[in-house]
Amino acid sequence: MKQISIREIAEQFNGKIFGDETLHISNVARIEEAQKGDLTFLYLPVYEKYFPITKASAIIVKRDYNKTRDDITYIEVDVPEIAFREIIINFFGTEVNLEGIDKTAFIYENAKLGSNASIGKNVVISAGCKIGDNAKIFHNTVILENVELGDDVIIYQNVSIREKCKIGNRVTIHAGTVIGADGFGYTQDENKVYHKIPQIGNVVIEDDVEIGANVTVDRAAMGSTIIKRGSKIDNLVQVAHNVVIGEDTVIAAQAGVSGSSKVGNRSILAGQVGIAGHLEIGDNVVLIAQSGVSKSILKPGYYFGSPAKELKTAFKLEAHIRSLPEYSEKLEKLEKEVKHLKEQLANALKQDKS
Amino acid sequence: MKQISIREIAEQFNGKIFGDETLHISNVARIEEAQKGDLTFLYLPVYEKYFPITKASAIIVKRDYNKTRDDITYIEVDVPEIAFREIIINFFGTEVNLEGIDKTAFIYENAKLGSNASIGKNVVISAGCKIGDNAKIFHNTVILENVELGDDVIIYQNVSIREKCKIGNRVTIHAGTVIGADGFGYTQDENKVYHKIPQIGNVVIEDDVEIGANVTVDRAAMGSTIIKRGSKIDNLVQVAHNVVIGEDTVIAAQAGVSGSSKVGNRSILAGQVGIAGHLEIGDNVVLIAQSGVSKSILKPGYYFGSPAKELKTAFKLEAHIRSLPEYSEKLEKLEKEVKHLKEQLANALKQDKS
Amino acid sequence: MKQISIREIAEQFNGKIFGDETLHISNVARIEEAQKGDLTFLYLPVYEKYFPITKASAIIVKRDYNKTRDDITYIEVDVPEIAFREIIINFFGTEVNLEGIDKTAFIYENAKLGSNASIGKNVVISAGCKIGDNAKIFHNTVILENVELGDDVIIYQNVSIREKCKIGNRVTIHAGTVIGADGFGYTQDENKVYHKIPQIGNVVIEDDVEIGANVTVDRAAMGSTIIKRGSKIDNLVQVAHNVVIGEDTVIAAQAGVSGSSKVGNRSILAGQVGIAGHLEIGDNVVLIAQSGVSKSILKPGYYFGSPAKELKTAFKLEAHIRSLPEYSEKLEKLEKEVKHLKEQLANALKQDKS
Repeated sequence: MKQISIREIAEQFNGKIFGDETLHISNVARIEEAQKGDLTFLYLPVYEKYFPITKASAIIVKRDYNKTRDDITYIEVDVPEIAFREIIINFFGTEVNLEGIDKTAFIYENAKLGSNASIGKNVVISAGCKIGDNAKIFHNTVILENVELGDDVIIYQNVSIREKCKIGNRVTIHAGTVIGADGFGYTQDENKVYHKIPQIGNVVIEDDVEIGANVTVDRAAMGSTIIKRGSKIDNLVQVAHNVVIGEDTVIAAQAGVSGSSKVGNRSILAGQVGIAGHLEIGDNVVLIAQSGVSKSILKPGYYFGSPAKELKTAFKLEAHIRSLPEYSEKLEKLEKEVKHLKEQLANALKQDKS
Repeated sequence: MKQISIREIAEQFNGKIFGDETLHISNVARIEEAQKGDLTFLYLPVYEKYFPITKASAIIVKRDYNKTRDDITYIEVDVPEIAFREIIINFFGTEVNLEGIDKTAFIYENAKLGSNASIGKNVVISAGCKIGDNAKIFHNTVILENVELGDDVIIYQNVSIREKCKIGNRVTIHAGTVIGADGFGYTQDENKVYHKIPQIGNVVIEDDVEIGANVTVDRAAMGSTIIKRGSKIDNLVQVAHNVVIGEDTVIAAQAGVSGSSKVGNRSILAGQVGIAGHLEIGDNVVLIAQSGVSKSILKPGYYFGSPAKELKTAFKLEAHIRSLPEYSEKLEKLEKEVKHLKEQLANALKQDKS
Repeated sequence: MKQISIREIAEQFNGKIFGDETLHISNVARIEEAQKGDLTFLYLPVYEKYFPITKASAIIVKRDYNKTRDDITYIEVDVPEIAFREIIINFFGTEVNLEGIDKTAFIYENAKLGSNASIGKNVVISAGCKIGDNAKIFHNTVILENVELGDDVIIYQNVSIREKCKIGNRVTIHAGTVIGADGFGYTQDENKVYHKIPQIGNVVIEDDVEIGANVTVDRAAMGSTIIKRGSKIDNLVQVAHNVVIGEDTVIAAQAGVSGSSKVGNRSILAGQVGIAGHLEIGDNVVLIAQSGVSKSILKPGYYFGSPAKELKTAFKLEAHIRSLPEYSEKLEKLEKEVKHLKEQLANALKQDKS
């Protein structure tokens, strides 16, 4: 079992130890699951409740954390989540066992592989493909003609990449994902019968993009469907033809972007969000889960609902909706009172005249 | 063609035959599609309308069914759906033709296979895997290092299971599903650039779980994503990292559970339901289709809407929403009446003073 | 580089050229991306804004288009989108490089292949399958026993087709899709434990259907799940057991149809629509994105919302919801006024009496 000195850990992050400086830890774990010998961490308030009961031997916390326990060793750092990430990378990184080019992989004659490629079993790399250095392509993945992949890509098993797509450096694509299937484009004739519009474009995925499992990114009708540098796409996301996703944008699981829509930089589409076609979503736009967007949103900010509204508005309207039973009662009461007032007034006026 | 005596069928379920006890049936079919010679069944009220016109020769019904036709043979049983299920298993079970270990399957040297395994073509079973007895693993499925599978598992084609995942006994996983892809976890730096948090946990699937096609169950950041005994997951469902799904819980197609959320036992997530991260859903909670949950729900019961509310409340509010045009009219009418009253009263008071 | 005469193009569609009749184009492109030498087209009003700035050398437009630029060559046609589609097919069609039966494909002895089949690497075609002429089946696709495919089918890579499914002529199925996985059917016992109902039906896909990537179409419990002639299914769609989809119906990405529901002809389910089980959706019904349907809809027309309403109603209610803050203020104001009126009237009456 590993034994890592917490002094060594603390030094890496300019961390300050409170407690047993000679401690060694053997594992990292979530605060509610950690056992004796484990290092854990705390930065989300929702997990504060586990602090009094965690069995961890050491914990990474923010500066000036309120150290109410003395049976645990604290490491104070500037940003616990970043420190923790680095600790995992440095001490507990996953091992990917894929080495060399398996003899069952099919690499067409004129395909070019960079140095140090690892290609798994039954992988198909078709004619005209160019693949950079240090590629890891797992078993049973199929790459059709003239695809280009950059350096340091990781493509997991059972991935399908269709012809002519271009994928940048340090891109990771998880299992079962389909890149470059035909966009969903048809014309309808006078008998309402659909005829396919051939989809002759491609998909371009820029550097440092990560794409989850069982995602679909369709090729453009013409031109390119583009996912720009640094964006992160979760599982089961749909990116339709001719969509452009900006830089450092996040799309959570099961969200979908319809044809020809553009999403800006540093935006966030939470889970199950849907964006209709031919729209523009600007930079720094955050769409809360399940929001449905049918008009362009250019103003940065938070949005929610189907159809989507500014979050403040959506919350206010939701509160009003919850008050509807009360409003309805008030309305009824008012109707009675007004009716009564009318009668009283009518009587009074009658008496006045009499 | 099969010929099965309905007397034999009836005996199995303590069923009582009304009609031709010597009848033999050759097939089972849905009530609206059944033909002469078929056995059908009826338990959902919505299908009662087909009873007068079904062409089935025999029908399984509840005790004391109102037998308005005399050209059909009835088998009365306690629970028609259970009887029917057993009849299918006993007399019409599907045949899965997978036998032996195909010579194109790659089973790494130190992987352990139990007895009576059936392994299809191009299957990859990586180093350190342990697989129980009677496993059926279909063509082109890929299992990475150190995965454990119990006895009597069925894994259909093109499934991807990543390293270190643990899968129990009698688990079925349908085609195209991805178990153990990286969870969606990043830290963001001061330039809004995302950096991956390595996902070093695994997925644990307990006994008697069934997982549909093209599902994604992500590995935990640390620790395990867990699906407990007896739960059933439909197609295209997303289960994020560190989620825990309880026992005998059902998740219908295209629903998603975000990171670190826990769902209790015997709960139901209907189609396209979404649950935000770090929440707790209790036991016996039923979320109606498309509900969106952004706060924990511990109280058993039915919930609906986005954001989700108790079903009774949701229905009441929906009725109020549908009444809004009427409320709006009433409001306008009241405004006029009040204005008129004010004028009348002002006049009356003026006259009084005059 | 290709050089295609626009005169040749115009002749095919009875098009009329305004501008340089001797022009040759080398590529087709979207209006906002087109470069010198490209042919583009215009039919959606939303793209009119790009007309003044497109760099295309030629453009396909409707008859009597307002030709405000004289540095571009126009081809007027009756229906630009249809003309454009044909031009792509005739001059820029994608090349699919799959020829012959790869020696690593496994075609079981008694499976029947029509003439001119192209079968990729590691494809599995199981016992009893019948495949028509001109089939193109890409690498690593797996087809289980007794499946029938018609003529001119295209099945992309990593597709899974389970036993006994029947697929018509000119059907295209994109990568990663699963046809014929078990429907999601269980009975629950007195301990709330679920027991699987074996799914012994199949899937029938009629002629001219196209099915996107990572779609799931489940096999029927009994009988068939059916997708009728000419329907088009986008990526990540769920079609549950015993569903029937009519002719020329369109289902956009991430929509789902629950068990035993029927959708009519020429209907449209937009993205992320959900339809509950055992319902009927009629012909010519259009469900706007994210709509949730819990009751049958037989009347043609547009519907929106969750629960879905006629679009006109949904829009009206949405407008009322947005007015709720105003209504609430009015209500409060009325309450004050009525209260004041009551006091005034009470005083007046008191004075009268005094």
